Amino acid sequence: MSDFSIGVDLGGTNLRIAAVTSDGRLLEKVNVNTKIGVEPHHVIEEMCEAIRRLSSQYGNGGKLLGAGIGIPGIIDLEAGVVSKSANLPGWSGYPVREEIERRLGTPIFLENDAKVAALGEQWLGAARGVRDMAMITLGTGIGGAIVLDGKIFHGMNGMAGEYGHITVEPEGVLCGCGNRGCAERYASATAIVRMAREMIAAGEAPELAKAASADAEFTSQTIYKLAKQGDQPALEIFRRFGRAFGMMLADIVNVLNLEMYVVGGGVSVAWDVFAPRMFEEIRKRSIVYAATEPDDTVGKAEGASADIAVRTRRKTIITRAVLGGDSGLYGGARLPLLN
Amino acid sequence: MSDFSIGVDLGGTNLRIAAVTSDGRLLEKVNVNTKIGVEPHHVIEEMCEAIRRLSSQYGNGGKLLGAGIGIPGIIDLEAGVVSKSANLPGWSGYPVREEIERRLGTPIFLENDAKVAALGEQWLGAARGVRDMAMITLGTGIGGAIVLDGKIFHGMNGMAGEYGHITVEPEGVLCGCGNRGCAERYASATAIVRMAREMIAAGEAPELAKAASADAEFTSQTIYKLAKQGDQPALEIFRRFGRAFGMMLADIVNVLNLEMYVVGGGVSVAWDVFAPRMFEEIRKRSIVYAATEPDDTVGKAEGASADIAVRTRRKTIITRAVLGGDSGLYGGARLPLLN
Repeated sequence: MSDFSIGVDLGGTNLRIAAVTSDGRLLEKVNVNTKIGVEPHHVIEEMCEAIRRLSSQYGNGGKLLGAGIGIPGIIDLEAGVVSKSANLPGWSGYPVREEIERRLGTPIFLENDAKVAALGEQWLGAARGVRDMAMITLGTGIGGAIVLDGKIFHGMNGMAGEYGHITVEPEGVLCGCGNRGCAERYASATAIVRMAREMIAAGEAPELAKAASADAEFTSQTIYKLAKQGDQPALEIFRRFGRAFGMMLADIVNVLNLEMYVVGGGVSVAWDVFAPRMFEEIRKRSIVYAATEPDDTVGKAEGASADIAVRTRRKTIITRAVLGGDSGLYGGARLPLLN
Repeated sequence: MSDFSIGVDLGGTNLRIAAVTSDGRLLEKVNVNTKIGVEPHHVIEEMCEAIRRLSSQYGNGGKLLGAGIGIPGIIDLEAGVVSKSANLPGWSGYPVREEIERRLGTPIFLENDAKVAALGEQWLGAARGVRDMAMITLGTGIGGAIVLDGKIFHGMNGMAGEYGHITVEPEGVLCGCGNRGCAERYASATAIVRMAREMIAAGEAPELAKAASADAEFTSQTIYKLAKQGDQPALEIFRRFGRAFGMMLADIVNVLNLEMYVVGGGVSVAWDVFAPRMFEEIRKRSIVYAATEPDDTVGKAEGASADIAVRTRRKTIITRAVLGGDSGLYGGARLPLLN
């Protein structure tokens, strides 16, 4: 048997844990039933109990190398503490890493959830074998990560990959960050519902209005379902989504020129209705994509005023994540192998 | 004495060469009088003669480690060939590296001019001691580079840092790349003159109109001079410049979260008239800058929906280049030391 590590996905509502061998084979995946948001002490007890159980079960064949924990929020990587998390209000300032390391005696790594998802997709998912890639997660907001040479590129303060706040509409919708027209105001679950409610209020979307009044929890899934049924206002919402998201991606591709951009998160299921408009926008707005597009439109960059050094003619791939909700589990298990 | 290397700045009109010690001391700087644009063979002969002279003059004290050549255009780094250069029309496809290496028997490195400028500023200029930085050069267009751990980050095809084609106005001015609203359509020497001509045509800028009719070569310098004298239409042009450039920088800071962004190139002399509006825009539009601004406005990022992992509270510095036209000479001389 092989050495193994533990990946933990500490979501806002679920605690999921997996044991994964160092060559990327899943040994076991468990769901821990516990109330996460309120009190960290109790959750950490249950988490450690589950890790101990997995460790003793698989420990005779190989060594436990450590555990990596993906957390939705702002993490102080040096201190091993959650600085701020909208979904885990009781966890701010709690010494998560220290408390778990003390109990288990194995190296513990905390990381932002979009960044572990990127590691998971790079290790065992859509970007397997691709050393330099970016991941964009579409959820209530937009999460982002840059992976260089197989490792998270954090930037100076761990904030590299803050794609959701790229401006796509200079005088657009006000964002919580104080800016107008941030990408995540147009390309996120929250944005989909907002656009639908605005269309309903304007009397432009009878089917959406019906769905909203029938459903107390009117969500982006409902709106996606209507789009799939051909409802024009619902489709228009995803076209606007695709336009904004494509503009954001075009900027990222121009700045980074990476081999692959993986799109994940819950809202990425709507890929079929937003991706056509997204690609249209990227093609138009990214000189780097135009010069490296897979279906061979090479040469466009040379006609323009780009002062660039072209090394090879490799292609830019923009694609969907393949690990779904498990990307964070695999990415968490990857962390101890990289450190 | 110390080992040394040669930096070559192969501009559209000038050929400049410098010998620099490996600890960054300038030994000598020469201007070679030759017609550059037309025929590479002759220019390479003169370049090699000058390098040979420098080499024999300083070679008794130390070893020549190689030469790095900054070129305005698209360079095939693997082949050592200029793929395309608007300023050096006769050079496309010419085996520059091979021809020089054959003559001199020392390692030769070609690089895009904005990228060598970045290396120069990182080695001996504004970003001395800063390992991770970006450079933006403001000229007829916008050049860009990313430096990570003291080396150029090229991306997959050498196109990383293509900042000038970031969209800042979704339905804005048409760009040569086919997109609308690219940053360099608003923040470059070309853009300054275009905006001035539009204001003149609209009858909104009497002083600019006077200057344009008096001056056959109506340039961005003339417009800058009028702005410095307090001419309101000229000042308005640089405010628009600053707004677009600030929006572009805000996106870059959100994506990269680097320690320093250095602004160089000929048009950066107008810093005093465009920078106030530029900083205003960056502050408003970059959640990463807001959280890491030097005058301590920390905390803004935490109030928003950013899912980020904050590692430290280090500050983001956006500043002017200090080496002026010599950044490319120093950066060229740096190349052999990095390879």
